[in-house]
Amino acid sequence: MKLKNFLIHSSTTLLLAAGMAAQAFEPLPDKVPTPADNPMTPAKIELGKQLFFDPRLSVDGTVSCNSCHNVMSSGTDNRPVSAGVDGKRGGRSAPTVWNAAFLTAQFWDGRAATLEDQAKGPILNPIEMGMPSAQMAVERIKAIPEYRDQFAKVFGGGDPVNYDNIAKAIATYERVLITPNSPFDRYIKGDKKALDAPAQRGMNLVKDLGCTGCHTGPNFAGPATLHSGEGFFQKFPVVAGTDYEKKFDLTGDTGRHESTKQEADKNMWRVPTWRNVALTAPYFHNGSVATLDEAVRVMAKTQLNQELNEAQVADIVAFLNSLTGEFPQQTMPRLPGTPNRTSFATK
Amino acid sequence: MKLKNFLIHSSTTLLLAAGMAAQAFEPLPDKVPTPADNPMTPAKIELGKQLFFDPRLSVDGTVSCNSCHNVMSSGTDNRPVSAGVDGKRGGRSAPTVWNAAFLTAQFWDGRAATLEDQAKGPILNPIEMGMPSAQMAVERIKAIPEYRDQFAKVFGGGDPVNYDNIAKAIATYERVLITPNSPFDRYIKGDKKALDAPAQRGMNLVKDLGCTGCHTGPNFAGPATLHSGEGFFQKFPVVAGTDYEKKFDLTGDTGRHESTKQEADKNMWRVPTWRNVALTAPYFHNGSVATLDEAVRVMAKTQLNQELNEAQVADIVAFLNSLTGEFPQQTMPRLPGTPNRTSFATK
Repeated sequence: MKLKNFLIHSSTTLLLAAGMAAQAFEPLPDKVPTPADNPMTPAKIELGKQLFFDPRLSVDGTVSCNSCHNVMSSGTDNRPVSAGVDGKRGGRSAPTVWNAAFLTAQFWDGRAATLEDQAKGPILNPIEMGMPSAQMAVERIKAIPEYRDQFAKVFGGGDPVNYDNIAKAIATYERVLITPNSPFDRYIKGDKKALDAPAQRGMNLVKDLGCTGCHTGPNFAGPATLHSGEGFFQKFPVVAGTDYEKKFDLTGDTGRHESTKQEADKNMWRVPTWRNVALTAPYFHNGSVATLDEAVRVMAKTQLNQELNEAQVADIVAFLNSLTGEFPQQTMPRLPGTPNRTSFATK
Repeated sequence: MKLKNFLIHSSTTLLLAAGMAAQAFEPLPDKVPTPADNPMTPAKIELGKQLFFDPRLSVDGTVSCNSCHNVMSSGTDNRPVSAGVDGKRGGRSAPTVWNAAFLTAQFWDGRAATLEDQAKGPILNPIEMGMPSAQMAVERIKAIPEYRDQFAKVFGGGDPVNYDNIAKAIATYERVLITPNSPFDRYIKGDKKALDAPAQRGMNLVKDLGCTGCHTGPNFAGPATLHSGEGFFQKFPVVAGTDYEKKFDLTGDTGRHESTKQEADKNMWRVPTWRNVALTAPYFHNGSVATLDEAVRVMAKTQLNQELNEAQVADIVAFLNSLTGEFPQQTMPRLPGTPNRTSFATK
């Protein structure tokens, strides 16, 4: 083959390969979906960042959103389950806040339709941030002069410091927490060198085995055609009675059923994102699995009734590592002070 | 008086006033003292920042240095006493990390001579970060690949990830946590408009009453002539048996005596800084006083046997507010990940 023909042939193959990949795999979009009633502004992002990092949203000032969804690392706390006020433990592992803006339902069981709805939950959960009431959270924030000023500027109106607006600001900050340009994204946009051979093999494997039947779409958490609030739920485990089910207590928590009480929702869970999954161990709703390779084995067995060999597991883990994106550099917020007094009871 | 003479007269007065103020009051130095064996480098500052924010230095991954010494706000948690792992409470209020680099002894009782010594304490304290041993802390950090790389670059040598170096990195980051250019600093450097009338009256009052007998030096925490490790300790309360002593339990904790067991150290305490004191409520070693005005009344009575009137308290509080400095903007650290696994036990 002459050099010229070789080049043409190679380019065609590349274009075909990229076209095929694009059918099954999609890059992270540049823009996040934003609700019509909560447009993003720089001032709202900044206010939301302060609130996200502010432990005063917990009853005793010990827990902030960031305590469990640490944006300086994986957007989780990498613990099996998180620790709330007074060291209280919940039953579920903190999902990552990174790219949560692309999910069409929030929480492991999808019981919140939007980031705004989600943000209202942990503040009032007695085993998380433990605020006795939304009113008390609002009063805590309203008593801080610089917060009052910012809420007035960002939201306007007669009584801008309210629980809806606290949630709107936090959700707006969360919409900037996206991680573009992972090796995977660069690969499917045409940079063939972005994935090494094991990751490429893993990419084919997750498609061939059927993993991407559920882990689909740009966030690997459901089809991009779904809208906010629709959610994308699957049964886990599909294959009942495996050793893994017992070992990792996969069915003790009945998932979506616990919030809807519908029999059909038993062991139904929101499909979690694969983005940055290499950084978010331990795995599953109860954080029972310490490593990604074991999580891959568990999923293959419980969802697809497949026993993977070591090489297959290694390739899939290599592919999943290629989904670690670029974490944008952020400035630390300055939390508004309460000059000359504390927000907390002294005795 | 002719205009020219008036101007000369005013300038002379200004110079005299500035000269007098400079005798009693000193601005925050531009440079922090640094130990010869721990020079500051940008890479060490960055490493120390990551460690300062890393909850993996606590046994269960729930508490970082920043949890109690929040550099996004006052350098404290604004709680009476801090919350350690499993919600455990200590007996003393977290002192601010801002400008701690200027203190000549660390902790409320001065039991650590340097920031390096101090950093080693809370990690191993069972009611703070709860690591069972320095070795376990070292192993936790050593197991994180990006930390290994950074320690090798910053410290070199055969085994750079060790407990001394963890403390050195954290201390180095803490040495950038200074707040220059408070209104007070600008005032004594010649900007007469930097302090309003109440703050100026308060400034004279703290000198005339004798507060600055102890709250002296550029950090209002002891003479600038002291060296690292010497410390500056005073008895509190000096006046025994006041109502305040009972109401706020000021003597239940015997201070420096609890670490030295020396009778002479009973109720001796390191003199805390006044810098940013308006932001560090609640006050005193046990965090028993919720507001700055009450803290001023308590100090006047227990240390100087003075009962202040409302106007005096307001003026002193105005002056203390003028000691709130400029907090430098900081980037968030990225905490190195543990790809494909968690640092914590799952079951």
